[in-house]
Amino acid sequence: MRVQRLNLDAASFRQLERTHTAADGSPDGDAVRQAVLDIVASRGKMQNPETGSGGMLVGVVEEVGEESPLGLQVGDRVATLVSLTLTPLVIEDELRGWDGRSEQVPADGYAILFGRSIAAGIPDDLPAELSLSVMDVCGAPALTARVVRQYDAPVVTVIGGAGKSGSLSLAAARDAGAARTVGVVPHQDEADLLEAAKLADAVAVADARDPVALAAAVEQAGGPADVTVVCVDVPGCEGGAILATKQGGTVIFFSMATSFSAAALGAEGLAADVTMLVGNGFVPGHADYALSLLRGHDGVRGLFERRL
Amino acid sequence: MRVQRLNLDAASFRQLERTHTAADGSPDGDAVRQAVLDIVASRGKMQNPETGSGGMLVGVVEEVGEESPLGLQVGDRVATLVSLTLTPLVIEDELRGWDGRSEQVPADGYAILFGRSIAAGIPDDLPAELSLSVMDVCGAPALTARVVRQYDAPVVTVIGGAGKSGSLSLAAARDAGAARTVGVVPHQDEADLLEAAKLADAVAVADARDPVALAAAVEQAGGPADVTVVCVDVPGCEGGAILATKQGGTVIFFSMATSFSAAALGAEGLAADVTMLVGNGFVPGHADYALSLLRGHDGVRGLFERRL
Repeated sequence: MRVQRLNLDAASFRQLERTHTAADGSPDGDAVRQAVLDIVASRGKMQNPETGSGGMLVGVVEEVGEESPLGLQVGDRVATLVSLTLTPLVIEDELRGWDGRSEQVPADGYAILFGRSIAAGIPDDLPAELSLSVMDVCGAPALTARVVRQYDAPVVTVIGGAGKSGSLSLAAARDAGAARTVGVVPHQDEADLLEAAKLADAVAVADARDPVALAAAVEQAGGPADVTVVCVDVPGCEGGAILATKQGGTVIFFSMATSFSAAALGAEGLAADVTMLVGNGFVPGHADYALSLLRGHDGVRGLFERRL
Repeated sequence: MRVQRLNLDAASFRQLERTHTAADGSPDGDAVRQAVLDIVASRGKMQNPETGSGGMLVGVVEEVGEESPLGLQVGDRVATLVSLTLTPLVIEDELRGWDGRSEQVPADGYAILFGRSIAAGIPDDLPAELSLSVMDVCGAPALTARVVRQYDAPVVTVIGGAGKSGSLSLAAARDAGAARTVGVVPHQDEADLLEAAKLADAVAVADARDPVALAAAVEQAGGPADVTVVCVDVPGCEGGAILATKQGGTVIFFSMATSFSAAALGAEGLAADVTMLVGNGFVPGHADYALSLLRGHDGVRGLFERRL
């Protein structure tokens, strides 16, 4: 593939911004760009050594292996739905078109997909940047819908409900039969945005890293939840998510900032009989489903367009 | 509680042994003991800073809060089933009775349980060390049984089948209706042990960190599995577990060495539609169930007794 654009994983980009700062503490875009170039040069792929995460890319098919099962043609414009951490990548333009201040990285270079990779065509009816931004998190709404359908009219809480995977997960929860959806956000600004988007039956403001505060806020909004979906990219949200979920409920962790041991030991330590899922980014049909949610919900589309 | 014995988490103990070595590279027991003392002194609890994990303890109830819901009496001899990472602990004997060469740590000191902690009485019919060793991993067989029951006559693979949680999980899988159980071990020695224990229909030798080798070994033994249970305490087994599991199957990660991002991105990168569970150490009735498996399976009991 000829690469046109990288879309960095949000947890990875935040980590790079936090690490590479100017004298006044603000993010240093040039240093962030150089850090990405260094990672790709040394690892042969974009994998943040701290977060372990990557992102995805958009490009045009340059060459197709004779036995490739991917169904692609030379000239197809596609997004890769396999992580950048598993995609051999060479950058050839030093990322000159990127200021290091956004997860969306214009780039020229090439990448290689394998027979078990996934790539999806970019739809004609939506701007490419918007489609890419949706596809980047399309595993979250698909898995949320699947889990919500396993319960009878459940209460569903989405932590980080105003974000990309969060807003799609709220739309998916309602689509899949949730009786009540609760969106949790960290600040009143985001609460206003999420309320205006009309994606949640209730919006709660709480610090997801404070388990007692989070559980109290969710309870006041109609919880505890049968299904809790964690979509925030900050560490330390495991305990709160568990505490805000009913016995017999399910917590789905989509954040790459999730600590496996904090989740496992937190549930044990709270004697919480909850099912905890590692958010698998692949569910068959996930890209089409996420795009259909975007097309069908102006609130989702509005939240995505703000971020482009 | 007056503390009598700590049982360190296996991943934590291995990490301490690897880090604190004598000049010839062998584990230095005195240095391991000092490391545990330092951790408890600085953190107020036994939580390995590298692995994030702890273990459990045995002791005698010294005092019961007026409103405690735990149903304990002063003088009860109990094991805590909540992680040491969540248990305030003071050690008062400098661990003089421990040589630093085993996960079982004789200790004198005190610990505090909370209203949402779990403690189980130590049964009279089994040696206390044996019961403690079983209770330490009792979440694994209970959750394995629950997941196996969700499938119709599944193939179940347990990676690390000759270990503590592994042997119990194999017994639980058969008990819960598995059509075929496969135990994976790293060496022929362990294969001989596991075959003699008669806990698995097939025993395969493979390096679980090598995805292709692991998947091939499991396939030859009757896989891929509907349910794969990861019970080995080494990093890097996520990809192999995913690759050795059928589409629509479930992987349960019990190892504290599991990387959340490696699991999430590995499944996505392989386009693997598998459910991935964080192994929750708490399932109601887990201690009694694990002890009943030990009593009912001489093979399990033999593998546990070897390790005391």
